[in-house]
Amino acid sequence: MNTPNQNQDMKEYRLEELTLPNDLKKLNFYQCRKLAKEIRSLMVRVISKNGGHLASNLGTVELTMALHRVFDSPKDKFVWDVGHQCYTHKILTGRLNAFPTIRKENGIAGFPKPDESEHDSFISGHSSTSISVACGIAEAMRLQGDNHHVVAIIGDGALTGGMAFEGLNNGGKKKMKNLIVILNDNNMSISSNVGAVSGYLRSIRESETYVRKKQQLEKNLMTAPKLGSHAVKMLKKTKDGFKRMVLQQATMFEQFGFVYLGPVDGHNMQELEEVLRTAKRYEAPVFIHVKTIKGKGYLPAEKNPSQFHGVSQFDILTGNPEVSGNGCYSDIFGKELVEMAKQDKRICAITAAMTFGTGLQYFQKQFPERFYDVGIAEQHAVTFSAGLASAGMIPVFAVYSTFLQRAYDQLLHDVAIGKLHVVLGIDRAGIVGEDGETHQGTFDVPMLTSIPGAVIYSPSCYEELRLCMHKAIHEETGLTAVRYPRGNDENMTFPKENLNADYTLTEIGTEKDILLISYGRVYQAVWEAHCTCEKSGCPTSLLKLTKIFPVMEELVEKALPYRVVMFFEESSGYGGISTIFGSLLAQYEFKGRYVRVSADCFLKQASVPALLEKSELSAQAVCRYIYAYENKD
Amino acid sequence: MNTPNQNQDMKEYRLEELTLPNDLKKLNFYQCRKLAKEIRSLMVRVISKNGGHLASNLGTVELTMALHRVFDSPKDKFVWDVGHQCYTHKILTGRLNAFPTIRKENGIAGFPKPDESEHDSFISGHSSTSISVACGIAEAMRLQGDNHHVVAIIGDGALTGGMAFEGLNNGGKKKMKNLIVILNDNNMSISSNVGAVSGYLRSIRESETYVRKKQQLEKNLMTAPKLGSHAVKMLKKTKDGFKRMVLQQATMFEQFGFVYLGPVDGHNMQELEEVLRTAKRYEAPVFIHVKTIKGKGYLPAEKNPSQFHGVSQFDILTGNPEVSGNGCYSDIFGKELVEMAKQDKRICAITAAMTFGTGLQYFQKQFPERFYDVGIAEQHAVTFSAGLASAGMIPVFAVYSTFLQRAYDQLLHDVAIGKLHVVLGIDRAGIVGEDGETHQGTFDVPMLTSIPGAVIYSPSCYEELRLCMHKAIHEETGLTAVRYPRGNDENMTFPKENLNADYTLTEIGTEKDILLISYGRVYQAVWEAHCTCEKSGCPTSLLKLTKIFPVMEELVEKALPYRVVMFFEESSGYGGISTIFGSLLAQYEFKGRYVRVSADCFLKQASVPALLEKSELSAQAVCRYIYAYENKD
Repeated sequence: MNTPNQNQDMKEYRLEELTLPNDLKKLNFYQCRKLAKEIRSLMVRVISKNGGHLASNLGTVELTMALHRVFDSPKDKFVWDVGHQCYTHKILTGRLNAFPTIRKENGIAGFPKPDESEHDSFISGHSSTSISVACGIAEAMRLQGDNHHVVAIIGDGALTGGMAFEGLNNGGKKKMKNLIVILNDNNMSISSNVGAVSGYLRSIRESETYVRKKQQLEKNLMTAPKLGSHAVKMLKKTKDGFKRMVLQQATMFEQFGFVYLGPVDGHNMQELEEVLRTAKRYEAPVFIHVKTIKGKGYLPAEKNPSQFHGVSQFDILTGNPEVSGNGCYSDIFGKELVEMAKQDKRICAITAAMTFGTGLQYFQKQFPERFYDVGIAEQHAVTFSAGLASAGMIPVFAVYSTFLQRAYDQLLHDVAIGKLHVVLGIDRAGIVGEDGETHQGTFDVPMLTSIPGAVIYSPSCYEELRLCMHKAIHEETGLTAVRYPRGNDENMTFPKENLNADYTLTEIGTEKDILLISYGRVYQAVWEAHCTCEKSGCPTSLLKLTKIFPVMEELVEKALPYRVVMFFEESSGYGGISTIFGSLLAQYEFKGRYVRVSADCFLKQASVPALLEKSELSAQAVCRYIYAYENKD
Repeated sequence: MNTPNQNQDMKEYRLEELTLPNDLKKLNFYQCRKLAKEIRSLMVRVISKNGGHLASNLGTVELTMALHRVFDSPKDKFVWDVGHQCYTHKILTGRLNAFPTIRKENGIAGFPKPDESEHDSFISGHSSTSISVACGIAEAMRLQGDNHHVVAIIGDGALTGGMAFEGLNNGGKKKMKNLIVILNDNNMSISSNVGAVSGYLRSIRESETYVRKKQQLEKNLMTAPKLGSHAVKMLKKTKDGFKRMVLQQATMFEQFGFVYLGPVDGHNMQELEEVLRTAKRYEAPVFIHVKTIKGKGYLPAEKNPSQFHGVSQFDILTGNPEVSGNGCYSDIFGKELVEMAKQDKRICAITAAMTFGTGLQYFQKQFPERFYDVGIAEQHAVTFSAGLASAGMIPVFAVYSTFLQRAYDQLLHDVAIGKLHVVLGIDRAGIVGEDGETHQGTFDVPMLTSIPGAVIYSPSCYEELRLCMHKAIHEETGLTAVRYPRGNDENMTFPKENLNADYTLTEIGTEKDILLISYGRVYQAVWEAHCTCEKSGCPTSLLKLTKIFPVMEELVEKALPYRVVMFFEESSGYGGISTIFGSLLAQYEFKGRYVRVSADCFLKQASVPALLEKSELSAQAVCRYIYAYENKD
C-alpha cells in the first residue's frame, strides 16, 4: 500500500468531474484509490439491476486505470480477452453516462465494440483470442512504422484455451517488440480453474518472492568469483544446459520467448504502473503476470466469485439473485443426467469450464470419477469425448451453443467420420439476449446439419428435454445433439401430447391451406398465433418437430398438398432446417408458396422477447404472416 | 549403435516370413535393423507408384517397431497424430500384402482406420488431436479397470496446434497413469518449423546431455552434505522456489505434469525400447522425446524432407516427381498474389505450415516482411488475420479447405461480426481423392454460408481464379473466400467468355425446359453433358456461377420459368448453394421440378474422377440426369 504524502493533494474527484481518460493521468495514487472505489460502487449498482459480469470487472478496476494512466489509448491498443472485464475501460473512455444502459437494447454493449468507441480496438466475447488479435495489430503497426503498443489482457482461465498457446507461440518473437501480454491471474476462470497450467500458475503465484530470488541468483552466478560446490561448478560449465534454463527459461512464458515480469499485486496502483512502465521500455514482447482478486471490493462477490461471474439481477445488500421458481433447462438437464448415470455406468459428463452454467454440478457431486471439467477447451472436450466413446463409454458434453463453434472440426473429423456415439447437450441454443452478437446460439444447427450422420433433437419443454435425452443417449448411435434454450419452460402452454414422438402434426379441417412448421422454443409462438388466428376465422395446421435433423422426407410429403407452408426457425437459416425443408419441397415438386422465417443475421443485445419479435419469431409476427398469406378467395 | 553379439542369431528374416506383429518380439536388434531396411525399401517402392506421405514414414520405422515390441497392440492402443506416419504400423499389423494398394480405391487407407484393423484405434488425418483422443481412451480404461497403456505419437509440428496444448493441460494429471505421449521430433513439421515451441525443442535437442546433467545435478543437490556457495545455499533453502523449478519443472512438459524422458535417438532400437520400458513402469503420465530424421534411409528424402512430405508418383533413383506441365491452382494463386502485393503494400500472406502446398513460397521469397507461417495453427491464423485487418492491412490466408474447419468460430466471431476484410484462399476445395474422408474439401461452403456477411467465389479456371482474387482483395470489404480445387485446369474446355462476370447464363432456345446450374470444377462436367445431350436432340440451358454466395435472387427469378432445374455441386449439400437455391425456388413459387446433386457424405479414398462419378458429378452422370428428366411429350 502506498500512503499519500503530507503535501499530496487530498481532493477527491468524482467520476463526473473528470475528463476521461486524459484527466486520469493527473491524479495521485490516493485519488486513484478513491476513484476505484467509486467505479466499483457504480458497477455493483448498475449490474445489480441490469445483470452482467460482476466479479471479473471488480477484479480489474486498478489494472484498467493503470493501463489508461501509462498508455495512450486509442493510439496504444488494448485487446480484452473474452471482453467481459471491460466495464472500467468503458467508464473511463466516454461511456460513464451511458453505463446504466449497459446490456440493454440500444444501450452500450457488455463487451468491447469498435462501433461504440475508438478505444475498443477489437470485438470480443469468446475466450483465448486476444493474443492472436494483438499479434495481428502489432504486426500491422510494425509494417506501418507505428511505435505504439498493443496490450492483450487475458485471464488465467482463457489461457487454458489452445488458441492462447498458438498466440503465445507466435507472439514470442523478437520482431513483436510492441506486444505486451498481461495475464490477469485470479486463480479462478469461471468455475475453479483446472489442469496443469492452473497448477503451474499457482506454483509461481504462491512463491511470492519467486522473481526476486531469480534475479538475485542470476546476479550471484554472474558475479561470484568462486563457486564452491560441485553442482554450481557444473552449472557454470554448462553453457547451454542448466544455466540457460535457470536464468532465462524460468517460466513457461519465457520459454515462449517473452520477457516475464511479475507477479505483481493487481490492486496496487503504484506496483502496476511501475511494471507497465518497465514493459514499455523493453524492445521485446513482454509477458506481465498480475495477481487480482475476482470480486474485489464487494464482499458477496469476493466470497462467491463463481456465482458472481455472470449474474442476473440481484439484491445489493445480500448478493442474493432474484430468480424465478421454475428452475431452468440447464438444471433439468443436469438432474436428469444424474438419474440416467445411476442406471448406466458408461455415462460420463464433460464440460469446458461451465459446470454450473450447464447444470453439471449435480453430476460432479454424485459421480466425480466420471465428471470432467477440461477448462476453456472445447476442442479437447469434443475429441476427449470421442476417445471415451471409442473405448465404450457414453460421453455427454454439455456446452453453450456459441462455444461449440470452437469444435466444428473435432465434431466432423474426430466424432462423425468414425460414427462415434458422442452426445451433445447444447445449452443456450437460440437467442440468448443481453450478451449480444458474440453469444447468440444461432449457429449450432447449420454447423451440425453440414456434418454427415449428425442427429439433432430440439425439445420444447422440460418433459420433452428428458425424453430427448433418453433417445439421444440410449437409442441413437452416432453424433447426437439435444439443443435447448437459455431460461425456463414456464411460458410453454401448448398441449403436451405425443411428446415422445419425433414430430407432432395437427391438421385442422380437410382443406390443406396453411401449414405452420416450427421446433423448440418458438413452437409456443406458433401455437399462440395458431390459436389467435383460428379464433378470427383463419385456421392453420401445425407441424411441431422434435427430432429436427435429419429432416424426415415423409414430413415433406405431408406438407406438399398445402397452399402455403411457413417455417419459423430460431436459428440462422442457411444450413438451418427451414432451408433444407424448403429445398426438399422444391425437389418434391411442391406447387404452393413456401415462407421461411429465421434469425439469419448477427443479433445485437436486447431481451430475448425483443429479439424474437425483431426476428419475426414472436406470436404477433407469426400472426402477421398468417394474415398476409390468408386465403382471400 | 548396438552391435550384435558374436553368438547372436544372424539369420535375416524377410517380412513375409514373419507372423506379425507377434514374431517381431522374437527378433534381436541386428535382425530388427535388417527388417527396418526392408520396410523402408518397400515403402519407397510403393509410394513412388501410389504417391503418399514418404518422409514422415521413413522417419518412424524404428519407433513403430519398438512400440510393437514393447507394447501389446491392440490391447495397448497407439494413437497416431495426423496419422500419415502409420505405414510401418500397417505393414506390421496384417496389412503387408495389402500395402501396394495403399491410397487406392478399395485398397487400404493412407491413414489409420478402425474399420480396417483392430490395431488402428482411432481415425486421424488432421493435426494435434492425438493427446485428447488418448486422454479419452486412458480414462475409459481406468473406469473399466483396464491397466493397458495408451500411447499418443505426435510430431513437433503438430505440437504447434493449440489443441495439443489443451490435451497436454488435461493429460498431465496423476490419474492418467496409463497415458504415454511420444514426441516424434524431426525438427520439421511439413515445412520448416516455426515459432517459440520449435525453438524451445531445438534448445533441448541440441543440448545432448541435458537430461543426464539434470539427473546428476539432482543427485548432487540431494546428497551433497555441504554446499559452499551462497547461491546453492539459497537453492537448498527455498523449498518451493528454484529447487522445484530446476528439479521437477525443467522442461515445459514437466511443467504440464508429465514425467519427461529423453531425448533419445529415434533410429536406435535399443535406446528406444529402453525408454519405452521405463515409461511403462511409471504410474504417471509420461512424455517421451524422440529425435528422428525425416526421410531417414532414402537420400533424396533426407535431403529434401519437405518435398517428400506428401508426394505424387516419383522416380526412385533420382527422387524426381513425375509432374504435368500445366502448373496447378496453388501455383497460379501464389504467383498472382505476388503481382498484386507489388501494387498494394497492405497485402499480407498467411499460411498454417503449408507454404509450398498453397503456393506461397513465391510470396515468402519476395515479401518476407509481410509473410507469416504461423505453424499448424489455423485458429491463430484467422484471428491474427483479423487483427491485421482491424489495423488496415489486407490479410490473405491460404489454407486447405479441410483444415479451415479448425477455424469456424474464428471466422464467425473474430472476422465476420466485426465485418473485417479478411480474404481466404481456399485450396483443395472440393474432392481431393486419395487422402480420403479426413481430407475432402467438401465442407467449406456450408461452413461459410452459415456466417452472416460471408462472400464466396468459386472460379472454374486459372484465368477466373485471377479475376476472383482481384475482386476478393480489391472490391469486397468483409470476409471473402476464393475456393479452388486441387490440381490444374487443363481439362477445362468450356467457352471462356464473360469470365469476369459473377455468373454466366446460357439460354438455349425459347422454350424454358431444362436448366443446369453449377460452379467451380464441376461446371466442366455440366458443360460436357450439355454438349453431348444437345447433339442427341436434348438441349439444355446453362447457369455457371462464379460468385456463388450470397445467392443472387435475380438468378432464382431467371430459373423460375424452367420445367426442370438441376443443380450440381461439388460440396456437401446441406448448407451448400444447391440447398439454398432450392429453398429460394420454393419461396418464389417455382412450379417445376428441382433436382439437387451434391457430395453429402464422407467420401472414401479413390481418384478424383472416380469420386466425382460416384457422387454423380461426372459428365456421364449429368447426362443420365438430363435423359431421366427429358421432356418425353
